[in-house]
Amino acid sequence: MHFQTFTKEYKEPFETYLIELITNESQTVIEEAMCYSLEAGGKRLRPLLLIALVKAFKKDETQAYPFAAALEMIHTYSLIHDDLPAMDDDDLRRGKPTNHIKYSEATAILAGDALLTKAFEVMTDGTCSNEIKLLLIKELARSSGYEGMVGGQQADMDGEHKQLSLIEIESIHSRKTGMLIHFAFKAAGLLAKVDAETLNDLNTIAKKIGIAYQIRDDILDVSGSEEELGKRVGADAKQGKSTYPSLLGMERAHKLFDDQLNEALLLNRAILEREENYDEELLDSFIESLKLN
Amino acid sequence: MHFQTFTKEYKEPFETYLIELITNESQTVIEEAMCYSLEAGGKRLRPLLLIALVKAFKKDETQAYPFAAALEMIHTYSLIHDDLPAMDDDDLRRGKPTNHIKYSEATAILAGDALLTKAFEVMTDGTCSNEIKLLLIKELARSSGYEGMVGGQQADMDGEHKQLSLIEIESIHSRKTGMLIHFAFKAAGLLAKVDAETLNDLNTIAKKIGIAYQIRDDILDVSGSEEELGKRVGADAKQGKSTYPSLLGMERAHKLFDDQLNEALLLNRAILEREENYDEELLDSFIESLKLN
Repeated sequence: MHFQTFTKEYKEPFETYLIELITNESQTVIEEAMCYSLEAGGKRLRPLLLIALVKAFKKDETQAYPFAAALEMIHTYSLIHDDLPAMDDDDLRRGKPTNHIKYSEATAILAGDALLTKAFEVMTDGTCSNEIKLLLIKELARSSGYEGMVGGQQADMDGEHKQLSLIEIESIHSRKTGMLIHFAFKAAGLLAKVDAETLNDLNTIAKKIGIAYQIRDDILDVSGSEEELGKRVGADAKQGKSTYPSLLGMERAHKLFDDQLNEALLLNRAILEREENYDEELLDSFIESLKLN
Repeated sequence: MHFQTFTKEYKEPFETYLIELITNESQTVIEEAMCYSLEAGGKRLRPLLLIALVKAFKKDETQAYPFAAALEMIHTYSLIHDDLPAMDDDDLRRGKPTNHIKYSEATAILAGDALLTKAFEVMTDGTCSNEIKLLLIKELARSSGYEGMVGGQQADMDGEHKQLSLIEIESIHSRKTGMLIHFAFKAAGLLAKVDAETLNDLNTIAKKIGIAYQIRDDILDVSGSEEELGKRVGADAKQGKSTYPSLLGMERAHKLFDDQLNEALLLNRAILEREENYDEELLDSFIESLKLN
């Protein structure tokens, strides 16, 4: 199955599932603010990737929903807090006013906190075994906390207006954006109960896609449109951030980006050779969809 | 055992356990900021109460540590975010500069996020059954999220400069402060595997102590010292908040406060009559320690 076909089929049901986890009859300001950012859309890449991968291994993909929803809630909370005046001070996100512009700074802080908290509640309701639930709760906490995403955001701020090395940039981004993408692969592998070798390949693919994803973001921040990126372009330069293009030049950044994706495609082929029932097209076409024209 | 004796014996080991959950060799800014607020102290009432109650039922109290630590991390993150300029804008907490004064607003937001996230990671490491771990993770998420603490904080802000009814004030505070105290009782009951009737009594005691706790805070904000309260006094009046004394007058606020504690003491007696091994002195003396001179 092509990832685009999968997305057409699964995006809407997943979004309905996601929003229904929060809304109740007496919607308060805080619930409204949470839903405002959850509903703002985006491609839902992380959660759809998680669900798609479980399906690719021919396992019941509905068991992935709570973890996919938790992942999207954590991604969304991080955007709300990232956009705050004290952080990136962005007024536009996915073409709409950011949460603190629409509501208030205080409500945006609380709505972010509430989404982060809800993510962990949602995971306790999974249909998989208690052991896997606890493994994934621990994994998502580590991926999004001070050793993961939050630590990467702090390091990213600390690195503003400094000349960073490629290793430093990679360390920041593997935490800031890579680890949540990584979680999608790891969670899918655990839910689909794949063997150790396949889990290992999934981990390596995740790392490569994580790096590719950041290079892509950096490139689009220079040469993309606001429509393409869903947020204001040129923000990195404004904030004095070291990026892949600023460090390597645009041509080598493009080369590094292509290398990551091609290596990921090769590893996906290796999984297919091992797992006969594996629908490799889902991940293949996902990787292809990341390519830049 | 007297709660004061218990505290003397357990506070330091618990604090050591708590801090060691975070610090590692290469302490980064974010870890430093997390530890700064965790180490700022306070009485550790919630976690010590949880540990003490498990001990009072003559069960292994060490199994309570991860949940006590998670509770303290969530309490601490809420103070960090509460103190932010966009929220209560406090510069003093427990006699020390607040997190955003010591570091920066951005770091304070991230340190709070990281503590909240870490709380859920820590709970996955408990020694109790997977079933109880998941129950407690769900319970703490509900108690601290938009249906609990965060929702209460939003409602508290929305109620500023408005005349609220007693029912509205109680609804705000049962969420804002009550539900975390409630978690200590519920978690202890589940970890100690008490029967349904005792669990019910613990829940009722928790509610009464939660209300008492808030009235006490309101009274001290009017008539206490900064040393006693550990933060600036007079903040409620400054922010135009409806409080128990502002609504009932000081005398009736004191009376309501005493009633809550006395009813809690009676219920604790009822537990003793049912559970022969129960050390009722721990909770008795804790309740007595809340009384105002």
